[in-house]
Amino acid sequence: MNAPISRRTLANALRFLAVDAVEQAKSGHPGAPMGMADIAEVLWRDHLRHNPANPQWPDRDRFVLSNGHGSMLLYALLHLAGYDLPLEQLQRFRQLGSKTAGHPEVGHTPGVETTTGPLGQGLTNAVGMALAEKLLARRYNRPGLDIVDHRTWVFVGDGCLMEGISHEACSLAGVWGLDKLTCFYDDNGISIDGHVDGWFRDDTPARFRAYGWDVIGPIDGHDAVAVAAAVAEAKTSRGKPTLIVCRTQIGWGSPNKVGTHDVHGAPLGAAEIAATRAALDWPHAPFEVPAEIRAAWDASSAGAAVEAEWQQRFAAYRAQYPELAAEFERTQAGGLPEAWPEIRGELLSTAAAKRGGIASRKSSQNCLDFLVDCVPELLGGSADLTGSNLTAGKGSVAWHAAGERLPNYLSYGVREFGMSAIMNGIALHGGLIPYGGTFAVFSDYARNAIRMSALMQQRVIYVLTHDSIGLGEDGPTHQPIEHVGSLRLIPGLDVWRPCDELETAVAWCESLERRDGPAALFLSRQNLEQCGDLAGRAAAIARGGYVLREADGPLQAVIIATGSEIGLALTAQQELAAHGVAVRVVSMPCCERFDRQTPAWKKSVLPPDIPRIAIEAGHPDPWRKYVGMVGEVVGIDSFGASGPAPALYEHFGLTAAHLARVVVETIARESASDGDF
Amino acid sequence: MNAPISRRTLANALRFLAVDAVEQAKSGHPGAPMGMADIAEVLWRDHLRHNPANPQWPDRDRFVLSNGHGSMLLYALLHLAGYDLPLEQLQRFRQLGSKTAGHPEVGHTPGVETTTGPLGQGLTNAVGMALAEKLLARRYNRPGLDIVDHRTWVFVGDGCLMEGISHEACSLAGVWGLDKLTCFYDDNGISIDGHVDGWFRDDTPARFRAYGWDVIGPIDGHDAVAVAAAVAEAKTSRGKPTLIVCRTQIGWGSPNKVGTHDVHGAPLGAAEIAATRAALDWPHAPFEVPAEIRAAWDASSAGAAVEAEWQQRFAAYRAQYPELAAEFERTQAGGLPEAWPEIRGELLSTAAAKRGGIASRKSSQNCLDFLVDCVPELLGGSADLTGSNLTAGKGSVAWHAAGERLPNYLSYGVREFGMSAIMNGIALHGGLIPYGGTFAVFSDYARNAIRMSALMQQRVIYVLTHDSIGLGEDGPTHQPIEHVGSLRLIPGLDVWRPCDELETAVAWCESLERRDGPAALFLSRQNLEQCGDLAGRAAAIARGGYVLREADGPLQAVIIATGSEIGLALTAQQELAAHGVAVRVVSMPCCERFDRQTPAWKKSVLPPDIPRIAIEAGHPDPWRKYVGMVGEVVGIDSFGASGPAPALYEHFGLTAAHLARVVVETIARESASDGDF
Repeated sequence: MNAPISRRTLANALRFLAVDAVEQAKSGHPGAPMGMADIAEVLWRDHLRHNPANPQWPDRDRFVLSNGHGSMLLYALLHLAGYDLPLEQLQRFRQLGSKTAGHPEVGHTPGVETTTGPLGQGLTNAVGMALAEKLLARRYNRPGLDIVDHRTWVFVGDGCLMEGISHEACSLAGVWGLDKLTCFYDDNGISIDGHVDGWFRDDTPARFRAYGWDVIGPIDGHDAVAVAAAVAEAKTSRGKPTLIVCRTQIGWGSPNKVGTHDVHGAPLGAAEIAATRAALDWPHAPFEVPAEIRAAWDASSAGAAVEAEWQQRFAAYRAQYPELAAEFERTQAGGLPEAWPEIRGELLSTAAAKRGGIASRKSSQNCLDFLVDCVPELLGGSADLTGSNLTAGKGSVAWHAAGERLPNYLSYGVREFGMSAIMNGIALHGGLIPYGGTFAVFSDYARNAIRMSALMQQRVIYVLTHDSIGLGEDGPTHQPIEHVGSLRLIPGLDVWRPCDELETAVAWCESLERRDGPAALFLSRQNLEQCGDLAGRAAAIARGGYVLREADGPLQAVIIATGSEIGLALTAQQELAAHGVAVRVVSMPCCERFDRQTPAWKKSVLPPDIPRIAIEAGHPDPWRKYVGMVGEVVGIDSFGASGPAPALYEHFGLTAAHLARVVVETIARESASDGDF
Repeated sequence: MNAPISRRTLANALRFLAVDAVEQAKSGHPGAPMGMADIAEVLWRDHLRHNPANPQWPDRDRFVLSNGHGSMLLYALLHLAGYDLPLEQLQRFRQLGSKTAGHPEVGHTPGVETTTGPLGQGLTNAVGMALAEKLLARRYNRPGLDIVDHRTWVFVGDGCLMEGISHEACSLAGVWGLDKLTCFYDDNGISIDGHVDGWFRDDTPARFRAYGWDVIGPIDGHDAVAVAAAVAEAKTSRGKPTLIVCRTQIGWGSPNKVGTHDVHGAPLGAAEIAATRAALDWPHAPFEVPAEIRAAWDASSAGAAVEAEWQQRFAAYRAQYPELAAEFERTQAGGLPEAWPEIRGELLSTAAAKRGGIASRKSSQNCLDFLVDCVPELLGGSADLTGSNLTAGKGSVAWHAAGERLPNYLSYGVREFGMSAIMNGIALHGGLIPYGGTFAVFSDYARNAIRMSALMQQRVIYVLTHDSIGLGEDGPTHQPIEHVGSLRLIPGLDVWRPCDELETAVAWCESLERRDGPAALFLSRQNLEQCGDLAGRAAAIARGGYVLREADGPLQAVIIATGSEIGLALTAQQELAAHGVAVRVVSMPCCERFDRQTPAWKKSVLPPDIPRIAIEAGHPDPWRKYVGMVGEVVGIDSFGASGPAPALYEHFGLTAAHLARVVVETIARESASDGDF
């Protein structure tokens, strides 16, 4: 009988898969996998509850590699544990079309829980996942039948902890008492510029204790016994997340490059790999892992057993709580309530009946008053602007004030980026649909998390109020100019800027129904007149752009407007009609939707050969896509100013009279010209 | 003789100016001014070294109100201290065209040091200012002649400390040992969603100690004696910045609204104002401040004296160190070195002589090798990507490795947002020109600080490398798609995407010469072929868009390209010429520059009636502005992918062959059509 395989040898299997794949790709980051292999071995082989055959098992532990550049560590773990990630894929690391992209990508590689690489966000996603677990456990678990009971494990490097978002996320994790969240800090003292003590001298344990975390260590991250003891201790934590500070050496095992930033982001090279093989007594060929080592890593049967045990529990749960079980399964699968068609119908007919002036942020709240009660998986919130974003519905129950009630609302504090990346984690976890608010201008703070929602195709809804100079006195720091246009450039993000309550309601419904991507709702602070319930309008709104009010006579021009500028467009239309100029008003609440329509629809809304004039209280350039160079755009290409909203609209030329003048000029110019150039 | 006026009465003058102005505007934030008035009174009357008659005095103390919504506190201080901000301006608070905008705006109101409102950034600007002071003191002070010796004071609220950027900034302030930075934390326990303990429970003193700060308090922020003692103690700190934790009540003085979030962002209302007047025994009419209180506040003569003393010292300094004094005055005034024309000339001629393939990030470093030595006020840095951004020139000396040498380079750590807002603070301080690097995709993390550079018209240079899918294997998390287009939408930001070393050198020169706004340089990871030194090219580049290579025959189409796609455009031009199709290649390294040219120049580059095709490895939509709807754009409207750069270019259709096909199709379509619509 052979001696048992040492933990170090098992860890070295990870190291060499990483080293060999990076070498083959001639690109990648061997340092972190080599440094964290010993930690990963203890966690994955002894603690992680997962089933490689079913990466979608709802009650699996979540593992997040926040230092995503160490992707080969994760690929090696998934491969050895038995996920559908064969060796050929590791051999095609970082090649176009492989399952082993440069950074881990959720939806692309089985077992990858979130896309990481932008530092600090994986950690923040993990906070969102752990929060989702805690909320769902509270909602669904019943005595003796804990169907939601899993942990979230996250690896972070120095970079993640330098990023500001780590402050936002970890402060909230402390407030929320996420005791099933365990964070392993790869404290190797190295970042790309070199030894971190030149730019990063935080007492990180003290910092995390200040957030209300348990902190273990520093421990030796290469001592499996110490790591095992730390993990065991972390599992006993009650009411606090845990940080395990692991002192490691980047590139551990490389005789000449260990502990230097040279090993961070470049292949070791053939000579150093040979030296490392010798130093670690790893005689195997590149990508070769002996069968007994593979066997020791294989988590297939243990995984099948642990899921089977849960399936049995869930069967008992279903028998006892059939409605809850059905809701759990529905929400895990991402489906909306069975009664959704009726819910949608009622929401839209209520909205269509509204009259008078209503701010679209208020219209959004009117929708939430209804939706929060009908769609229990909604999890709302705001970055400390609840009363301004109007993100709480009547049925919203704040986490911090919930008491015995089930919370469905979070005050995230003044943490836009953290909120957004936490929402990504919540959506990735499954079972909840997160939405969160801030001022539109501060979408800047959250921008890369919004991008990540789109890249990961997650249903996250951003409620962005105070959407233009129409917010008035707060001035240019608070007035979006370029924001709506620049968010429209993020691939896969639907940006809605509704003009009244019906458009707002459609935006909410479409955003909830869309399961493969995020939405941003731009909403006004100021009141907007309702456009009424014209026949078939709701269906037209869902197409993103439609004829809101047809021209009274042979068409001479088309005005395209969004949101708060629809009112100006309709007034200009009337003024022009009084002067015998017949123009159509097109409402374009969602350009991305409109762009996805058939050519026939697009042509019916924007007929060729008819001049177009767009108006939006934002940067004009993006509208050139629809008006070309001979059309015109009434917008704002400078920063705003502080003053009452009506004065600002006048000052920046956003008036019906100015729009009407521009329409007349454009018609005149176009009839005198014969082309675009 | 009257009894001396109490400190409380002096503070109440601030309170009522704020309350009355907010009431008159029917808009604004009285809570913070009422809560921080007692602190402000001690600081401004007893410690702040400034001269209201000369807000530009270089050695003044800097005061930053990071919780910028409390703007009326600052306006009341400036008014009472004797700045050119008359009462009429306070009475026009938040009105269009007044000097008292909703949030403080630098350049708009005398004595305002930075534009605040976006939370956390004022604090970060202050870190930049204190760093600039420390660097300049080291550079210029001589024994007995400290011409740079001032403090930076900053007020922050709970919101600033929740924001992630506070982590980045304060961690660096600790590393840098900014002992002349003092931060007053308005610890009032309230933010917009209510009592902060539902979402913000950090042990803030412990957190700041973990950053290497001195922490004083908590003290009673309404006890002037305690505040005075704390400030005195802070001034003795050596090697550490100081946080003074001031327990305050938001809206102090308002009998019924004190300590509630109702007083945060809305006028008190007539009845509550009357009650507050009674409670604080302030019998004066709105906006009325008795003469003896005004006299006690007036800092004019003390300010004149303190500056006069400095002027005397500076005269002695000039006599002893004429060259240093001249450099100090030049850099404070924002002028470039006297030899700048020669420096520019040499840089450009060296660049023009380059041949072969050079990554534009490397070209940028070649420029810095030269500029760092010639322009001593350059202060470089990177958010932990020095070796990737190539932001260090041969003459760069890192802060953390400087020893006895003068540092001119900062490793900011993985803190893109912090770096950017610190650079804003450095630029606002004066005397240095900051530039800093990160990957272009992570401009997202810094986006609102980049916006603030533009809004404040500061000369800050962003070095954004790895500017497209051309970075290759790191994959979609690292590949900019929408970034170059979306940054072009920020008003006042010049975005450069140079195609070779000459264009890179011009971008650097123009960005340095531009004194009223920031620039972003998009630079490639991959090698780019040099375009050579065509006659007059440098001057043409400076116009933002120019004819790089003319068509060989009667013009049939214009290809517009930038950066790394110029090579494809030139190849396509040759291929097309071989097939008898004559196209011109326009290089458009800076759209904003081009847009500022005369109509004649624009027309000469982009002749009317000639079809245009743009190519850029980024989102295509922004180019509709130049090609209209009948032209075409070769770009990428989805996220990127992980793989070697050449494979990605092929995969996404960014090839000369594809471009040539699109050109032929566009010419054919355009000749068959007769208009834009």
